[in-house]
Amino acid sequence: MTEKELWSGRFSDRLDPAALNFSSSPEDAKLFKHDIMGSIAHAGGLKLARLLTQQEFRAISGGLVDIYRENASDPRLFLEGEEDIHMAVEGRLTALRPDAGRKLHTARSRNDQIATDMRLYVREETAGIARMVLALQKALLSVAKAHRRAAMPSYTHLQRAQPVFLSHHMLAHFWRLERDFDRFRGNSVRLNASPLGAGAIAGTSHPIDTRYTAKLLGFSRPFSNSMDATSDRDFVVDACFANAMTALHLSSIAEELVLWSSTEFSYIELPDSLSTGSSIMPHKKNPDMAEHIRGRSSSVFSALFEVMSILKSLPVGYASDMQHTKKPLFSSFDTLSSMLSLVAPLLKGIKFNRKALHSSASDEFSFSVEAVDAMVRSGTPFREAHEIVGRAVRESLDTGRSFRETLYAHGIALPEDAFAAIEIRSSRGGSSTPSIAHQLTDASVTLSAESAWVRREAGRLTAIERRLLR
Amino acid sequence: MTEKELWSGRFSDRLDPAALNFSSSPEDAKLFKHDIMGSIAHAGGLKLARLLTQQEFRAISGGLVDIYRENASDPRLFLEGEEDIHMAVEGRLTALRPDAGRKLHTARSRNDQIATDMRLYVREETAGIARMVLALQKALLSVAKAHRRAAMPSYTHLQRAQPVFLSHHMLAHFWRLERDFDRFRGNSVRLNASPLGAGAIAGTSHPIDTRYTAKLLGFSRPFSNSMDATSDRDFVVDACFANAMTALHLSSIAEELVLWSSTEFSYIELPDSLSTGSSIMPHKKNPDMAEHIRGRSSSVFSALFEVMSILKSLPVGYASDMQHTKKPLFSSFDTLSSMLSLVAPLLKGIKFNRKALHSSASDEFSFSVEAVDAMVRSGTPFREAHEIVGRAVRESLDTGRSFRETLYAHGIALPEDAFAAIEIRSSRGGSSTPSIAHQLTDASVTLSAESAWVRREAGRLTAIERRLLR
Amino acid sequence: MTEKELWSGRFSDRLDPAALNFSSSPEDAKLFKHDIMGSIAHAGGLKLARLLTQQEFRAISGGLVDIYRENASDPRLFLEGEEDIHMAVEGRLTALRPDAGRKLHTARSRNDQIATDMRLYVREETAGIARMVLALQKALLSVAKAHRRAAMPSYTHLQRAQPVFLSHHMLAHFWRLERDFDRFRGNSVRLNASPLGAGAIAGTSHPIDTRYTAKLLGFSRPFSNSMDATSDRDFVVDACFANAMTALHLSSIAEELVLWSSTEFSYIELPDSLSTGSSIMPHKKNPDMAEHIRGRSSSVFSALFEVMSILKSLPVGYASDMQHTKKPLFSSFDTLSSMLSLVAPLLKGIKFNRKALHSSASDEFSFSVEAVDAMVRSGTPFREAHEIVGRAVRESLDTGRSFRETLYAHGIALPEDAFAAIEIRSSRGGSSTPSIAHQLTDASVTLSAESAWVRREAGRLTAIERRLLR
Amino acid sequence: MTEKELWSGRFSDRLDPAALNFSSSPEDAKLFKHDIMGSIAHAGGLKLARLLTQQEFRAISGGLVDIYRENASDPRLFLEGEEDIHMAVEGRLTALRPDAGRKLHTARSRNDQIATDMRLYVREETAGIARMVLALQKALLSVAKAHRRAAMPSYTHLQRAQPVFLSHHMLAHFWRLERDFDRFRGNSVRLNASPLGAGAIAGTSHPIDTRYTAKLLGFSRPFSNSMDATSDRDFVVDACFANAMTALHLSSIAEELVLWSSTEFSYIELPDSLSTGSSIMPHKKNPDMAEHIRGRSSSVFSALFEVMSILKSLPVGYASDMQHTKKPLFSSFDTLSSMLSLVAPLLKGIKFNRKALHSSASDEFSFSVEAVDAMVRSGTPFREAHEIVGRAVRESLDTGRSFRETLYAHGIALPEDAFAAIEIRSSRGGSSTPSIAHQLTDASVTLSAESAWVRREAGRLTAIERRLLR
Repeated sequence: MTEKELWSGRFSDRLDPAALNFSSSPEDAKLFKHDIMGSIAHAGGLKLARLLTQQEFRAISGGLVDIYRENASDPRLFLEGEEDIHMAVEGRLTALRPDAGRKLHTARSRNDQIATDMRLYVREETAGIARMVLALQKALLSVAKAHRRAAMPSYTHLQRAQPVFLSHHMLAHFWRLERDFDRFRGNSVRLNASPLGAGAIAGTSHPIDTRYTAKLLGFSRPFSNSMDATSDRDFVVDACFANAMTALHLSSIAEELVLWSSTEFSYIELPDSLSTGSSIMPHKKNPDMAEHIRGRSSSVFSALFEVMSILKSLPVGYASDMQHTKKPLFSSFDTLSSMLSLVAPLLKGIKFNRKALHSSASDEFSFSVEAVDAMVRSGTPFREAHEIVGRAVRESLDTGRSFRETLYAHGIALPEDAFAAIEIRSSRGGSSTPSIAHQLTDASVTLSAESAWVRREAGRLTAIERRLLR
Repeated sequence: MTEKELWSGRFSDRLDPAALNFSSSPEDAKLFKHDIMGSIAHAGGLKLARLLTQQEFRAISGGLVDIYRENASDPRLFLEGEEDIHMAVEGRLTALRPDAGRKLHTARSRNDQIATDMRLYVREETAGIARMVLALQKALLSVAKAHRRAAMPSYTHLQRAQPVFLSHHMLAHFWRLERDFDRFRGNSVRLNASPLGAGAIAGTSHPIDTRYTAKLLGFSRPFSNSMDATSDRDFVVDACFANAMTALHLSSIAEELVLWSSTEFSYIELPDSLSTGSSIMPHKKNPDMAEHIRGRSSSVFSALFEVMSILKSLPVGYASDMQHTKKPLFSSFDTLSSMLSLVAPLLKGIKFNRKALHSSASDEFSFSVEAVDAMVRSGTPFREAHEIVGRAVRESLDTGRSFRETLYAHGIALPEDAFAAIEIRSSRGGSSTPSIAHQLTDASVTLSAESAWVRREAGRLTAIERRLLR
Repeated sequence: MTEKELWSGRFSDRLDPAALNFSSSPEDAKLFKHDIMGSIAHAGGLKLARLLTQQEFRAISGGLVDIYRENASDPRLFLEGEEDIHMAVEGRLTALRPDAGRKLHTARSRNDQIATDMRLYVREETAGIARMVLALQKALLSVAKAHRRAAMPSYTHLQRAQPVFLSHHMLAHFWRLERDFDRFRGNSVRLNASPLGAGAIAGTSHPIDTRYTAKLLGFSRPFSNSMDATSDRDFVVDACFANAMTALHLSSIAEELVLWSSTEFSYIELPDSLSTGSSIMPHKKNPDMAEHIRGRSSSVFSALFEVMSILKSLPVGYASDMQHTKKPLFSSFDTLSSMLSLVAPLLKGIKFNRKALHSSASDEFSFSVEAVDAMVRSGTPFREAHEIVGRAVRESLDTGRSFRETLYAHGIALPEDAFAAIEIRSSRGGSSTPSIAHQLTDASVTLSAESAWVRREAGRLTAIERRLLR
Repeated sequence: MTEKELWSGRFSDRLDPAALNFSSSPEDAKLFKHDIMGSIAHAGGLKLARLLTQQEFRAISGGLVDIYRENASDPRLFLEGEEDIHMAVEGRLTALRPDAGRKLHTARSRNDQIATDMRLYVREETAGIARMVLALQKALLSVAKAHRRAAMPSYTHLQRAQPVFLSHHMLAHFWRLERDFDRFRGNSVRLNASPLGAGAIAGTSHPIDTRYTAKLLGFSRPFSNSMDATSDRDFVVDACFANAMTALHLSSIAEELVLWSSTEFSYIELPDSLSTGSSIMPHKKNPDMAEHIRGRSSSVFSALFEVMSILKSLPVGYASDMQHTKKPLFSSFDTLSSMLSLVAPLLKGIKFNRKALHSSASDEFSFSVEAVDAMVRSGTPFREAHEIVGRAVRESLDTGRSFRETLYAHGIALPEDAFAAIEIRSSRGGSSTPSIAHQLTDASVTLSAESAWVRREAGRLTAIERRLLR
C-alpha cells in the first residue's frame, strides 16, 4: 500500500484496510502492460501539449518501461496491497522519478485511463481469440478433408435423418465458427476509439490533442463525447457476447463428441491422452475433455449475463459498479481461450470408426426422402408420395419385412446404398461429392481471408506495443 | 385442425390433442406473411426446376396470395388448432388448390422453411427497430440543440463531478444509440443468407437453384452448407443481443429520468399525459413510464438468456427445442419496440428546470479540477496541486468558509462560474461550446448516413414484399 | 377505459392513450379472482372498523361477487382498455353500486392490494404445481414398479458404468421431485403473510385490524412492516426459483427420453400419439414432446433471471418496475404446468425395450468393479486390484479376447451376468432387489405425506374461496 | 503430479499435460478440510465393515490428520499439478502409509466423495453466511433504535410518498434479511443427507453401513438412492439461490446509500474511512463501497445462472460438467461474504443528516393521505375525498399558494407536521411510535431465535470437525 492515497487531500481518515481490500482490484494484473502503454501514450500527449518537457517525458516513459520490464513476468506481486493498477504504477513511477512522476496524471483521470486500458486489453485478446478460432476452423477442415467421403447419418431430433458425408457435418461447424470470426473482427472495429483526453467525464482544459494519443495507441479515432468515452462499456459486453457465441458453438461440438464416444454410437474413439478414467471403475474411459468444454460454456455465458446485470440502469458517468465488469470480462476470455486450445487437438486426435458410421448410414429408412423424390420425378405429387412411402414404413415395421422389399412390392425403388442416397442430393450446399467440393473451396477462400486479417492485426498490435515499450 | 397430419403416413395413432396443443406454436401468427412469401419464392424455384408447370405455379402463388389477403388482419384465428404456420398454410392451400397444393412441399422441409421465415422476420424487424433508434437519436439531438448551453452538473458515483452543458449529456446517449444502430445494421448483413433448398438437413436431389430463390427473397446469397442452414439460429441470438444492448441503454436513460424527476433533484417535470397518479396519495405524480422502460429492459435481457440456454449443447440438426427460440425472439422485438416508441415522446415532453440545473452546476466544489489545472499551468506538478486543492476542500468543509474564499486565501483562483468552468474544457469531446458544436456536426453526419440506410433498407424490403405478394 | 383515471385529481392532462397502453397490464386477467377476493376481505375489514355500514359492505361484496360471476369465464375482455385489474374492478363496482363503491378504496392502496393479489395467486398456483409434481412422482413410481427387475446400464459421462434395475433409475428422478415438492411446500409457508393494511407504504390512520383481514384470506399472519409488505417480491422470486428447479429436473428426464429413443440406444419407443413426423422424411418419428419439455425448461429459467434483474437495486417502496414481475411469474407457472402435464402421460406411454436394455446391461466391462470388489474381499488392496483389473481391460481391448476370459486367465472371476452384478450391490440405496424394495417403501411413505398435504392445502384454499365468493 | 494416474490401468497413454491442466480443479483447495473429514469418516465405515483392521484405520486416519495439519494454512500449494483434491490426498496418504493407503478407496468413488465434500462445504458456509446475516440484522436494528423517531419521507417511484420514521425504513430491510436467514436455515435441512456409500452411481457390494458414516459426518440420514446421491447438485443451486436473494437485498440497501449520499438528497454522510476520492477531482468523496456492493450482487446472481445452465439437460449420473459448478459455488459464497462483511460497518459508520431528513419529511404534499383520511372519517366517501384533495394539489401548484393554505380554504385540515402525520398511522406494521415499538419487539424475538440457531449449528459443526480431525 502506498503511504497515502494519492487522492486523499480532502479526507481526514485513512481508508479502512478492509475497505481497501474490498474495493481493490487484484485482477488488474491483466492490465499491467496496457496501463503502461496507455500512460506512455498519455505522456506523449502531454509533451506535445508542452505540459511536459522533453526531459520529463523521457523520465516518465523510461521509468514506465523499467517498471514494465521488472514486473512483466508476474504483475500480481506488484499489485499486492494497492488500490488498483493505476495507483500502483503512478505510485511506483513517482518513487522512481519523483519530479516528473507527479506530473503524469495531468489532464487525465482514472476514468479515461481504465477505459483505455480495457480497450487495449480487449483488442489484444480479441485478436488472440480470432487466431484460435481460425486454428479450429483449420482443424475442422482437415478432418473434413480426411473423411471427405465417409458416410454417416445426419440427425434431426437425434433420430437418423439422411446419410451424409462426415465432411459435410464437419463443415457445418466450420461455418458457425466463420460467423464467430466475423463477430470478433467486427468488434475490433467498433471498439476502435480512444478515450484518452476525456478526463473524469467532462474533458480537460489542457490542450491535449486526442487524435495524437489515439494514433500512438493505434486507435483509428478519438471518442466523440467525453461523457460517453468514460461511461461506455459496450465493448466489454460485445466481447463477452462474441465469446459466448463461440462457447455456444463449442458446446455443440462437445455434445456430439460425448454422444459419439458412447458405446451405443461408437462413432469415435478419443485418444487416451485426452481422456480420463474412473477412480473406481477400471473399465471406464471418459470423454471428459468434451464434458469440460460443455460445462465451461456456461461460464462464458454467465460472464455475459453478469456484465449486463451490472450495467443495467446505471446513469451516465463512472460508477464503481463498472469495476466489476473486469472479472467476468477476463474470465470470459480466459475460459474461452482454454476451451479453444483443447478442442483442436481433441478433434485431431479422434479416431473415427468409419465402419460404424457407414453401417448407421446404411439404415434404409433414412433413404425414404430419395424414394419420395423419385416418385415426384415420375409425376406423383409430393404429398401423395410422402403418404405412400410413410405407409410403407409402417408396413415394414409391422411385418418385419425390410423397407427396401416393402417398397419394391409397391413398385418403388430405394437408392442402392448410402452413397447413392448421398450423391443424388447435389443441390448447392447439399450432400453430394461435388457439393462438398464446392464447400471445401468456399472454406479455403474464407480461411485465406481470415488468415490475412489475423496476420495483419497481429502485426499491427505488435508494432504498436514495440514502439511504446521499447 | 387439419383432418390428418400431413406427415402421418407412418403413424398408427393420431396425435394426442394435448400433445398437439403442447407442441403447436400459436406465436407463429407473427410469421404468417413471411411463410407466404417464402412459399411463393419456393414455388418459383420449383417452376424454374420444372417441378411445377407454369399453371401449377400460378395456382399456388395465386392461392397463397389469396390466403394472405384473407387473413392478414388477424392471422391468429387462422392458426387456431393447427400444428404450425407451415402446416396451416399448406393445408389451406391444398384445400383451395388440391392438385398444385400437394406439390408445394417438393424439395423442401419445414426445417429450411422455418429458417427462411425467421430470417425474413428478423430482417424486417431489424429494419424497423433501426428506424426507431434513429428517431430516438433525432429526439436526443433536438433536446441537445434546445439546451445547447444549459449548465448542469455531470455526475460520477452519483456525486457532482464537473459542470457540463445538458447538450453534452444528451449527446452521450446519442452515441450509445449510434453503436446500437451499427449492431442492427451489421446483423442485417450477417443474416443475409437464404436457407431455402437445404431441405430437412442434407439438401435435395431436385435441381433447385438456391441462388434464384435467394434472389427472389432478397437474400444476398444462399447458404454454403445445408446442415448449417437448417441448424443455425445465430441470427436469432444476434438479434436478441442487439435488442438487449439497446434496452440496456434505454434503462440508463430511464434511470436518469426517475432520478431527475425526484423532488430532491427537481431537474425535470414529466408531462402529465405521460405520468400517472396514486390510487391513494392524491399528491403523487409518478415517473412510471420511465420505470416501465427500466423494468422492461430486463425482459429484453431475459429473451437473450433464454435463447442461449435453449441452444446450448444441441447437436447439429433441427431439434424441437429450437422452436422455443421464437417466443423470446418475438417478445424481444415487441418489448423493445414498445419501449422505443415511448422514450422519444417522453424526452420531447420533458420540461427541464434550467434554474435548478444551473444552481446545481454552480456548486463551487465541482470547479476543483479547474483550480488544479490553473495551478498546473503555472508550473505546480499535478499531484501537488491536487493535494493542495484537496486540503482546501477539507478546510472549507471544516470551517464553513466558502470553497472560493478558502482557495483565494491560498492564492488559488476558481473559475468565475459554471460557464467559465465548462468553456475552459475545450478538448475534443469536451464540454466547451466549440467542442459541443463539433459534436453536433458529427451527430448530424451520422444521422444522415443512418437515415440513408434506413430508407434504402425499407425501400428494398417493400419492393421484395410487393413483388412476391402482388 | 373508465371515463377518467380515479387518481387524476391533481392532473391537468389525461393520460396519453399510448402511455396507457404501455403501462397497462392485460396479464392481470390472471388476478381477476384474487383481486375480487382481496377486495371482499378488505371490505370486511372496513366494516369491522366501522368505515362501512353493514349495508354498504353487502352492497360491495355482493357487487364484487356479481362482477366475478359475470366475467370469470374470460376476464380478458373485462380488462380491455383498463389501466389494471384494480381500477377495472373498482370502476365497475362504482358503476354498479356508486355510493358504496366509492368507499372501497378507503385505507388501501394499489400497493398493498397488488401484493395481496399476487400472494393469493402464487399460493393457489403453488398448490396446483405441487399436485402435478405428486402425480409425476406417482407415474415414476408406477414405471419403477412395472420394471422393478429390468436390468439396464447406468451411465456416468454417458459411458456405461454398472448395471442397475430400471426401477433404480426411475427412483432417482422420484427423489429429485421430492425435493421440488419440499420447496413448493416451504414456499407456501414463507409467503403466508397478508399485506392488506400496509396502504401505499406507511400503513393507515384507519383502525384496520390486519389480523382479521389476514384471517379472512387464510393467511397465517399480517405483515410486520408496511414498507416491507408493499415492497417485498421475494415470494415471486422464490416461486420462480422453485419452478425453475422442477424444470431443471424435467429437462434431465427429457434428455434421457431423447437419448433412449434414438436408434443407437433403442431403449424405448414413444407412443405414436405423443410423437410427430417429418414434413419431408416419411420414416421419421420424432421424440419432440421430450424436446419441447427440454426447450421450455429454458423459459422457466429465464423467468427467474428476469424477476431478479428487475428487482436488483430497487430502493424500498413500490416502483413500476415491479409490475413487470407479473408476466414472467405467470409464464413460469403456465409453462411449468404445461410441461408437467405432458411428462406423466409420456412416461406412462413409453414402451421399454427390455431386450435392448438387458443386452446393454450385459456388457461385461461394466462388471469390472465387482471383480475388483471380489479381489478386495480376498485381501488385495483396492488400488492394486483396480490396477490389475484395469490392465485386464486394456489387454482385452488389445487382444480381442473377452474381458471375462482375460480375467479368468488371471484367476479373477466376473459376476455371472448383469443380475448377479446388480444383486451383489446390496448397500442401502444400492442396486440389489432388497435395496430397491427398501426405496419403494420409502417412496410410498413420502407419497402419502405429500398427498395428505396436497389434499389439506386444496381443501383449505377451496374453503377460503367459497367463503369469500359465495 | 503423482507419478501415474491412479485410474490408469486401462490406458496406454499418459494424460496430456494440457488436458490435465484443463480438467484439473485448483479451486478444490476450498475442499481440502472437507475431503479429509469425509475420508476419515469413510475409513471409519470401512473399519466397521471389517474392510480395514483397527491398525489400518489408525494409519489412515492418523495420516490424513497429518496431511491436514501440514497443509491447512495454504492447501493451494498442496494441490499444484494434481488432478483434483481426492487424488492429491489419496496419493499423499499412500506415499505416507502405503499399505493402508491403497485400501482407502475401497467401496468408494470420487463421485460419492465429491458429493460428500461439497455438502460439508455448503453446510459450513451456510452456517457462516447465516451468522453474517444475523450480524447485519443486528446492525440494522441498532440503527433503527438509534433513530427511532427521526422523521424522513418514504418513497414510492422515488417520489416522496408519506413521512415515516427512519427506524421504520431500517426495519423493512431487517425483515428481508429475516427471510434470507430462513432460506439458509431451510437449506441446511434439505442438504442434510450423506452420499457416502453410493459409490460411482450404483452403490457397493461391500457391507458399508451408510447410516454410520452419515452419523460420523453429522448428516441426519444417508441418501435413499445411490444414483440420485451421486448426481444431485440441487443443494448447490439452492445455496447459490439463497445467496443471490441476499445479494439482491444488499443491492437495494446499496442503492439507497448511493442515493442518500448524493448532494441532492444529502441524507447521510459516509465515513471517510469507507469512502474513496477521485484521482483527478480533489473535491470528490465517493460512496464507492455501496457501489461495489451493488456491482458485486450481479456476480452472485450470475453464479446461480451458471450452475443452472451447467446442470440443464444432463442425464442422471456424474458428468464432468458438474465439476464446473464448484467455481461459481465458491465464488457465490466468497463474494456474498465479502459484501456482508462491509455492509454492517458501513451502516454503523453512517452519519445521518437528521435535519435534512426532517426537512424533506415536512413536505406538506406528503400529508395528503391524512387529509383524505380525515375527510373519510367525517363521512366523505374515499374517492370523493381523494379527488378533492387531488384538485387542491393542482390548485396549489398552479397558484403557488401553500398546500396547507389551499386545503384550509376548502375547509380541510392537514396534519400539523410530519410527526403528526406519522403518528396517526397506527395500524399494525404502520408508522406510529407504538407500531414501531411493536416491530422492534418482533425483531428482538426473531433475533433471539436466529442467534440460538447460529450458536447451535456452529457448536454442532465444530464438534463434528474436532471429533474427526483430532
